Amino acid sequence: MSTTQTYTVTGMTCGHCVASVTEEVEEISGVEKIDIVLETGSLTITSSEPVDDAAVKTAVEEAGYQLA
Amino acid sequence: MSTTQTYTVTGMTCGHCVASVTEEVEEISGVEKIDIVLETGSLTITSSEPVDDAAVKTAVEEAGYQLA
Repeated sequence: MSTTQTYTVTGMTCGHCVASVTEEVEEISGVEKIDIVLETGSLTITSSEPVDDAAVKTAVEEAGYQLA
Repeated sequence: MSTTQTYTVTGMTCGHCVASVTEEVEEISGVEKIDIVLETGSLTITSSEPVDDAAVKTAVEEAGYQLA
């Protein structure tokens, strides 16, 4: 059983930005899959159990971006 | 005695892009200093002797960008 949560990340402009966000978010415990669409900023996280919004916010900010 | 050459790079959108171009260009023999202005795409290379335009083109392309 997996959970999917979707967020919007602002400030990503290229594939390097996507890689940075992916790197940080995949460190969150339980995360199984990350899909980011650069054009829209959408970040979809699939995890074994729901991840904490605050942990996602922290990860995105550590990468240098913001949640919308 | 140093030489300064200026080019315009297209396609850089963020600091990661600047870092990628810097990494490749600094491998060119004789390069002493690199200045990149993200907003304009300007790439200024200071070197001990003139660098070959073709080497700059190759380096920029290896980073994933183009010379204008």
